[in-house]
Amino acid sequence: MSPTVGVIGGGQLARMMVPAAINLGIDIRVLAETAGESAAIAVTDLGDYRDEATVLEFAQSVDVITFDHEHVPQSVLKALVAAGVSVQPSPDALLYAQDKLLMRERLSALGLPVPDWARVTSVDELDAFLSDHGGQGVLKTPRGGYDGKGVRVVRSAAEGADWFEGGAELLVEELVSFTRELAQLVARRPSGDLELWPVVETIQRDSVCAEVIAPAPNSAGKVADVAADIATSIAEALGVTGVLAVEMFQTTDERLLINELAMRPHNTGHWSIDGSTTSQFEQHLRAVLDLPLGATGCRDEWSVMVNILGGPSNGSLADRYDLALADQPTVKFHNYGKDPRPGRKVGHVTAGGDDLDDVVYRARAASAFFDN
Amino acid sequence: MSPTVGVIGGGQLARMMVPAAINLGIDIRVLAETAGESAAIAVTDLGDYRDEATVLEFAQSVDVITFDHEHVPQSVLKALVAAGVSVQPSPDALLYAQDKLLMRERLSALGLPVPDWARVTSVDELDAFLSDHGGQGVLKTPRGGYDGKGVRVVRSAAEGADWFEGGAELLVEELVSFTRELAQLVARRPSGDLELWPVVETIQRDSVCAEVIAPAPNSAGKVADVAADIATSIAEALGVTGVLAVEMFQTTDERLLINELAMRPHNTGHWSIDGSTTSQFEQHLRAVLDLPLGATGCRDEWSVMVNILGGPSNGSLADRYDLALADQPTVKFHNYGKDPRPGRKVGHVTAGGDDLDDVVYRARAASAFFDN
Repeated sequence: MSPTVGVIGGGQLARMMVPAAINLGIDIRVLAETAGESAAIAVTDLGDYRDEATVLEFAQSVDVITFDHEHVPQSVLKALVAAGVSVQPSPDALLYAQDKLLMRERLSALGLPVPDWARVTSVDELDAFLSDHGGQGVLKTPRGGYDGKGVRVVRSAAEGADWFEGGAELLVEELVSFTRELAQLVARRPSGDLELWPVVETIQRDSVCAEVIAPAPNSAGKVADVAADIATSIAEALGVTGVLAVEMFQTTDERLLINELAMRPHNTGHWSIDGSTTSQFEQHLRAVLDLPLGATGCRDEWSVMVNILGGPSNGSLADRYDLALADQPTVKFHNYGKDPRPGRKVGHVTAGGDDLDDVVYRARAASAFFDN
Repeated sequence: MSPTVGVIGGGQLARMMVPAAINLGIDIRVLAETAGESAAIAVTDLGDYRDEATVLEFAQSVDVITFDHEHVPQSVLKALVAAGVSVQPSPDALLYAQDKLLMRERLSALGLPVPDWARVTSVDELDAFLSDHGGQGVLKTPRGGYDGKGVRVVRSAAEGADWFEGGAELLVEELVSFTRELAQLVARRPSGDLELWPVVETIQRDSVCAEVIAPAPNSAGKVADVAADIATSIAEALGVTGVLAVEMFQTTDERLLINELAMRPHNTGHWSIDGSTTSQFEQHLRAVLDLPLGATGCRDEWSVMVNILGGPSNGSLADRYDLALADQPTVKFHNYGKDPRPGRKVGHVTAGGDDLDDVVYRARAASAFFDN
């Protein structure tokens, strides 16, 4: 029998698992909230991922449960485990991708490099932290944020006052002075083996990933080694299974500080579909099924991924194919089948080659056909 | 709106179009004969492809009709065209992939290199041909053959007698003395542009494709040029759209003779999924939608594809993954989701790299895990 993977969430990450599942002959089933989501071709169940009965019923039809997003409540995850379902990553690991305060506490306890941070429950506590950190900081809601949501740079405690209403616990961090952002992806099996891709450079715009360069320029040697050590330590200490993405700052004083964690395929790994021997989506499926992991070498000296954010203001991405595909015959186009909407991730392109300037040019040129 | 491609036939060729469709955001719908076929994830309609009403109804839901196999009757194809459906390749082109006698006539009329051949309707006519060709020949039924079925080497006219019963017209060809077999794949858009992959060497066992080496060793220069010219001439003269595969013999006296034609993705092009910038499946979708074609360069110096024929005598392909994936982490595994059965094409593996001996070794080693 073919193994069956169940994915909770029907977004583009679930969608991009499907080609890998088809290649390997893995059956894939997706629980989506509504019909017509990005992963529609593999959606078998519709329902609310916060509803225990819905998720338990979905789990009956699969060998392992994994995720398109980290929003499934711990209570639901624990009910799955109690029912004997293989949940990868486990609730105990996933917790640290769900709650930024717990993540900061845990990584600090492990001695891993993180920005200065504090748990704050009042404007006064926030004010004290800001006073110790040059009068500025980054205030974060511990749960539910993504792509810059739930994150606010504050330069006075008053700027965060509204978030404390109702007695919230918040995370505040120093505003790190960084030269660039990096991401280190690793995949780990339940039985322990892990494989790393090369560390990549990520370029954010308006707090959303815009471009990724793989491998990160000028990373050979110490930067790559430190990034790999950090991701390996986290994967092993937290018992992560499947893909783990560690977003990091490279500081002006040449340290790497951990920013965010994700325990699923991640935007900073999309280049691997076309640029690595094993894509993050194939590797995630292998890992959650506890199958041997694939090789993670680069297929090109440089790969550059550019997100298609928003998409055309009129019509669909496919309406631009006549021009875009003709102009960039070597670029790989990925269309998530989502309606264009300002700022929305609706697709990406990946270019590869030996000359980084040329690769960047081709990827940007291809993505530009889908602007406006 | 996303374009929608309708594929008639639910086998592994339709299956392998699905990842390419997902990447490009093309909706794909498949008309299969029965539930649970290889392309099940994209099957939207079940029915008989020989039934005009069934096929016409399926065609209502798509922008273009294309094929997993060449068995749709001309009467059904012509009814589609009469109803205004875009059929790619057209019935007039596909005819020459359906009927080997018509194909031989047409290619001969075009002055293209084919083995000596004759149309024979009796044992006496067969005997006359054999007498002129050293007492041996290859007898073929004009329609419905594949993978060695409908093909018989004869060394006396009596050996073909049973096939003439009922007044059949048969094709007889000289038994070509060849050093190896080659295949040249090309994709052509309705508007005329075409792109060729490098010519490949194919190794047959028991008349079934067993291995493919891309590009064909020692083909640079004249062999590649002649193969490309032949395929280009056929695609243009016959007005083929989508992928055209031209199987050829390289003779002991260094000529290339056309053996068979297929007008769809072809087993000899499966290496392109992992080994070319644009796979034959992506290119086929682009071509039948009249979208700009992708680049067809090789991603590795050598790619070697080995078919998984038959598969395990007990259990499924996936049962062997623990050993196979661990042993060959660089090899790409393709499992068609079909039950193992002796001689059946149930999957393939592709290896790539700079050293042909090593690439061949890894591909064969990977495939061997699925034997017996």
